[in-house]
Amino acid sequence: MSIDVLQERIRKLKSPIMVGLDPYLPILPRHIVRDAFDEYGQTLRGAAEAYYRFCTELLDRLCPIVPAVKLQSACFEALGADGICQMQRISKYARELGYYVLMDSMRGDVGSVAEIYAQAVFGSVPVGETAYQLYSCDGLTVNGYLGSDGIKPFLPYCKHDGKNVFILLKTSNKSSREVQDLLSGDRVVYTAMADLAMRWGTDLIGKNGYSEIGAVVGATFPQTMKLLREKYDRLFFVVPGYGAQGGTAKNVQFAFDRFGHGAIVAASRSIICAWQKDGGDGENYLDCAEEAALKMKADIGKYVVIL
Amino acid sequence: MSIDVLQERIRKLKSPIMVGLDPYLPILPRHIVRDAFDEYGQTLRGAAEAYYRFCTELLDRLCPIVPAVKLQSACFEALGADGICQMQRISKYARELGYYVLMDSMRGDVGSVAEIYAQAVFGSVPVGETAYQLYSCDGLTVNGYLGSDGIKPFLPYCKHDGKNVFILLKTSNKSSREVQDLLSGDRVVYTAMADLAMRWGTDLIGKNGYSEIGAVVGATFPQTMKLLREKYDRLFFVVPGYGAQGGTAKNVQFAFDRFGHGAIVAASRSIICAWQKDGGDGENYLDCAEEAALKMKADIGKYVVIL
Repeated sequence: MSIDVLQERIRKLKSPIMVGLDPYLPILPRHIVRDAFDEYGQTLRGAAEAYYRFCTELLDRLCPIVPAVKLQSACFEALGADGICQMQRISKYARELGYYVLMDSMRGDVGSVAEIYAQAVFGSVPVGETAYQLYSCDGLTVNGYLGSDGIKPFLPYCKHDGKNVFILLKTSNKSSREVQDLLSGDRVVYTAMADLAMRWGTDLIGKNGYSEIGAVVGATFPQTMKLLREKYDRLFFVVPGYGAQGGTAKNVQFAFDRFGHGAIVAASRSIICAWQKDGGDGENYLDCAEEAALKMKADIGKYVVIL
Repeated sequence: MSIDVLQERIRKLKSPIMVGLDPYLPILPRHIVRDAFDEYGQTLRGAAEAYYRFCTELLDRLCPIVPAVKLQSACFEALGADGICQMQRISKYARELGYYVLMDSMRGDVGSVAEIYAQAVFGSVPVGETAYQLYSCDGLTVNGYLGSDGIKPFLPYCKHDGKNVFILLKTSNKSSREVQDLLSGDRVVYTAMADLAMRWGTDLIGKNGYSEIGAVVGATFPQTMKLLREKYDRLFFVVPGYGAQGGTAKNVQFAFDRFGHGAIVAASRSIICAWQKDGGDGENYLDCAEEAALKMKADIGKYVVIL
């Protein structure tokens, strides 16, 4: 089961950290952009090559500390075909280094479109007699607003190929309450969504007790997190919103069970843009990212002991 | 205002039809796949070139009947960079022919990621001193589960560049009720979402009375449609689920106001796969698509008169 693999990697590194790679040009160190422009011009290809170097150098450096990585597909799509091409390469590179790779596309569709997408993300795409592996992901974030029809196409991959789907329950942004917190009987929308996530994963429970169908729960609402952790003991949580968005180590402790399992905390800007804090041009961005990841690990370690 | 442009095109052609382009190899006519494989091999490039020919030939043929087209981005992403490259070309081609182009990616994200995505879809992407136009879209479907933070990044483009966002309210699939129909006080989730959509579009009302922020409402729930049309008189509806998914002309009539305005009905498989019904190899797929589109137009015309 893939969720066991993720948990095992976290346990081995004693580090419940997922680094979010959501590159765009203004956050890249000057030398990386300059070198790419020198070689490929001020083109989409040039920008995409800069993303590749930035992301893979980060992956190399963070590998001993960080078990999982999250690719923000919208950032790569924003460079068109060149961006997608590099996203595929980065994803492959990350898996080869042993990372658990989550593709963060936050979509929801149904029917044949969802089937086609599931096949591309988790399986291989048949073209004539050849099958092409494109995105090499272990997990995918999915918006469950469309209900079971939007999740079913992913389930065979979760069951047979050790893939994971993480359903958005409660996101880290302030206005998440507008829809997600609506009261409905004795539930709110995000607990109704959690009930669905539990149902979808009923027969997909791994050795560690967590289901292949996980959930996304923002770091910025600690009380919500606590309630969700207590009630939904089969849902593995991906917890975004740490650092730049205001989530703290104290907050995220509630995402974990008493063994320090069942969750991973995602951080992007606070790690990959750490170099921007010291006022330089980013020559030292790898050192800054490593330092930030180690600090995050230590901070969370004050509250969470991974057994 | 872009929603006025869409309404005017519908009015001019007396045809409230949006054709959905969601290609994948099994639905392409044999000769198109064969020719593409002959030229580019059984490769992702070959498949993507087949998509391009299929879609642009359909666009050429349907142009006098159909005012708008919907590109299903997941289908193109499923071919990786090659698919995205052709989606960009098809989108550009469609706009040159005068189509209103909706990108159907059904996503929702927040913060800088949503800003980056909005810029790529609606604006142009700056790379050094150059700015690249990538997706050439007039409108985008957005999943509003994340609340206002997920919509705000799109609003400047709606206000200043005549772009539209269509919020998923009630989708056409059966299990849409699981989340969307949850009762909350005197509302259900999809009407709460509609209230938000109305709020987001308050100062974006076009000459025809509809807002640049529209909504997606499935064709398969006529009573719901009726209630939504009555209550949300500023929301322009994109209505998927016609044809293959079971929505009928009788059903979709309720999406329109008394002038026959305020909605467009989306159909994909029932038009672009119409050739599969006659048992042939698809040599005649353009004739079949045209016939299906004309039949759809006539069917809806029995119930809806566009003034």
